Amino acid sequence: MTGLRKQVFVGTFISSKSPNELNYLHDALVCVDGEGRIVKVDNECGSASEVEKRLLKTLGWKLSEVDIHVAQPGQFFFPGFIDSHIHAPQYPNVGIFGKTTLLDWLEKYTFPLESSLKDLAKARRVYTSCVRRTLANGTTTAAYFATIDVQATNLLADLCLELGQRAFVGRVCMDNPDICPDHYRDESAAEGLDKTMQTIRHVQDIDPEFKLVSPILTPRFAPSCSSESMHGLARIQKEMDLPVQTHISENDGEIALVAQMFPDSGSYANMYDDHGLLTSRTILAHAIHLSEAEAQLVAKRGSKVSHCPCSNSSLTSGAARVRWMWDKGITVGLGTDMSGGYSPSILEAARQAALVSRHVAMGLDAADPDKERSKLTVEEVLHLATRGGAEVVGLQGRVGGFEEGMEWDAQLIGLGSVDDEGVSDSDGNVDVFGWETWEERVAKWLFNGDDRNVKKVWVKGRMVHARK
Amino acid sequence: MTGLRKQVFVGTFISSKSPNELNYLHDALVCVDGEGRIVKVDNECGSASEVEKRLLKTLGWKLSEVDIHVAQPGQFFFPGFIDSHIHAPQYPNVGIFGKTTLLDWLEKYTFPLESSLKDLAKARRVYTSCVRRTLANGTTTAAYFATIDVQATNLLADLCLELGQRAFVGRVCMDNPDICPDHYRDESAAEGLDKTMQTIRHVQDIDPEFKLVSPILTPRFAPSCSSESMHGLARIQKEMDLPVQTHISENDGEIALVAQMFPDSGSYANMYDDHGLLTSRTILAHAIHLSEAEAQLVAKRGSKVSHCPCSNSSLTSGAARVRWMWDKGITVGLGTDMSGGYSPSILEAARQAALVSRHVAMGLDAADPDKERSKLTVEEVLHLATRGGAEVVGLQGRVGGFEEGMEWDAQLIGLGSVDDEGVSDSDGNVDVFGWETWEERVAKWLFNGDDRNVKKVWVKGRMVHARK
Repeated sequence: MTGLRKQVFVGTFISSKSPNELNYLHDALVCVDGEGRIVKVDNECGSASEVEKRLLKTLGWKLSEVDIHVAQPGQFFFPGFIDSHIHAPQYPNVGIFGKTTLLDWLEKYTFPLESSLKDLAKARRVYTSCVRRTLANGTTTAAYFATIDVQATNLLADLCLELGQRAFVGRVCMDNPDICPDHYRDESAAEGLDKTMQTIRHVQDIDPEFKLVSPILTPRFAPSCSSESMHGLARIQKEMDLPVQTHISENDGEIALVAQMFPDSGSYANMYDDHGLLTSRTILAHAIHLSEAEAQLVAKRGSKVSHCPCSNSSLTSGAARVRWMWDKGITVGLGTDMSGGYSPSILEAARQAALVSRHVAMGLDAADPDKERSKLTVEEVLHLATRGGAEVVGLQGRVGGFEEGMEWDAQLIGLGSVDDEGVSDSDGNVDVFGWETWEERVAKWLFNGDDRNVKKVWVKGRMVHARK
Repeated sequence: MTGLRKQVFVGTFISSKSPNELNYLHDALVCVDGEGRIVKVDNECGSASEVEKRLLKTLGWKLSEVDIHVAQPGQFFFPGFIDSHIHAPQYPNVGIFGKTTLLDWLEKYTFPLESSLKDLAKARRVYTSCVRRTLANGTTTAAYFATIDVQATNLLADLCLELGQRAFVGRVCMDNPDICPDHYRDESAAEGLDKTMQTIRHVQDIDPEFKLVSPILTPRFAPSCSSESMHGLARIQKEMDLPVQTHISENDGEIALVAQMFPDSGSYANMYDDHGLLTSRTILAHAIHLSEAEAQLVAKRGSKVSHCPCSNSSLTSGAARVRWMWDKGITVGLGTDMSGGYSPSILEAARQAALVSRHVAMGLDAADPDKERSKLTVEEVLHLATRGGAEVVGLQGRVGGFEEGMEWDAQLIGLGSVDDEGVSDSDGNVDVFGWETWEERVAKWLFNGDDRNVKKVWVKGRMVHARK
């Protein structure tokens, strides 16, 4: 990742300023050094022809030592998306879930596919397609669940490094024989912890400072783990200050199971807290049915939530209350939760977050003051997709925006244009007629955009995808 | 539309057999005559090399007189989609709705755009892009709301005929000054009826037997129409046996308005019935909040419902109960309801119909026997998109399936294939690994497919779209 040439990006830059506001910079320059770091944001450039003068003036950079990337009129740079909850091995199953809900879905579709990835050739094929596909959709950072298999999990970390995606890679811990099938579980808590350490060491080997790829402790979800296993992971977390990811409060059957298995804890959140897993570096996927007390505890511990609307609707899990969690002080980002979610795209997750928030609103009484407030705006779901996600995975201040000092994780977005005869120049589904405001263009992109609008993608300054 | 060469389609054909079952024909032949009619479905062909022999044997057709279209391995023919509720003039506004609900959305976004299409150059541009875009997404039949403007509405009918899309084209009737803005309404009921007749006569001129394009009576929705206007349209309907399209029971505020404006009717459905508009040729968009009695009345009259899930979630209108309507005996199809709905794609509407049905289920008590039943399967939403829609627009037996005697309204669908290295050969988002069943491939297409998977589209035998 070192030794990149200096780069200058010229054009319109759109990014999340606050949860309900986007920042628009036009005719701006963003200068990125050889380490992929933004060293200058110059909003007074004026035009591309001024670049040389401005560069020399502000940074002392000569034109000959930089690569210049100019956004065409109508195109804009946007921060790369952050997928804070995704199961890489499940990519081949996207869209395949029938009428199942969480627990039968795991048994019918998920465990058999994950288990089969101990075949490393298959793992390479599935993981390569997953990383390529998510990069093409603008995902510059992903928090991955892999499988229980060490070699296959390590391969996923290798592929992320090779293909240039920023990633948290977790070997999945699951040792409870009552829930996990014989063909797919850790034989004991001790074995699971040992295997987890093998993956941590592997990532330390390939990326010692976790500049791009980091290990993440991954107890699948409470019902699949013994207490011993969860306590062990909490010990490792504390010793090594590593991030943690798991699931919480996704489905009624799952919640009942946790209550039955851990009767002394009193709640799902308390149970994780009792095991030392509710840390400020913990990503909790779903969190649909949290009680008031649980939400307060999550907020107090500083644990984060990955909201996965595609998955929650598909598996009939529920409609998570993002506004309510924000009100409690919980940080929220987005997850595709592939393949509980049917799409590898965080733009699709953002779109569904807007729609699901309207279902939350529709479930409230007309007199409820939160009814109108529950609805998320375009700006808010794009915040979840970038800054929110960055905070969830602990990379706030490094990715998710375009401030000086941050790293250049970005996508170049291009929309289509309709000519006077009504013919679009775009292969994509976003048609701009010309009279739309920038805010309206962004709304059109959110609701009809796809990977065709993602022209180029960079992670830490390196171009990792360019649309053919 | 006459004078086409005979055509033979060879390969896999998938279509809806019943609401919950798809029919799969492999290695089959479908023979289409010069009028675009399916004259033979031959399921015993065996392979493409047998085509010549089978053709001669079954139809006496010689190879020299037919064009042959062979689906590549993995591709399949599927009936064209039927969009039973779409507002053509609103295409430029897709995705733009902010936090509005129906009544403020009309005022803020919709009426200004529709009104502006009295500029015929603008109408041509917008309508061309709308028809091209929906064709590219596999919509072979559309029931269009145009605007109040006769010239622009007639232009839409011309364009459908020219571009080859089967369409119902309705000049919008709206003459109530309390609801409709001064700049955009019929000056009187009489004027509205006269203008409606002008469009009917125009369509009679360009397509006398309504082979491809048909007029449709279009009272916008009850609050926008005077009683006189609705009674007048009902008279025309009876005299000319024309189809009717309008909206019903979309939004709480709208329902309250109808109750206030028509206090004697007792319900929204009764009100249309009192005006003679609840006919067996009536398409009712939305029907979210119907009472039991209203649903029974709609079923009794044989009126049909266009379910518009994208719109209903976006505008926070509600979650329509498709299973419940089916249980009442109501025929249901799908509508994009662009731009209340954010997408021109019926595949997206089908996807959202599956998701919204799960939100309906989540709104029911765990003990409710309809909770599980409310969920719609892949097969059911694809039925809504084809056969259901055909019944809604009154074209059952003519389009929506591949039986002999029906017309060839079809799309050729191709999915992507992932090679051994994990690289997809597809520009689209559907990746097939090779081990999936046909049912799983169809599910993957439903949930991640888009216009890239629509390789070719035919209406009445004519190829109207071919993907570059």
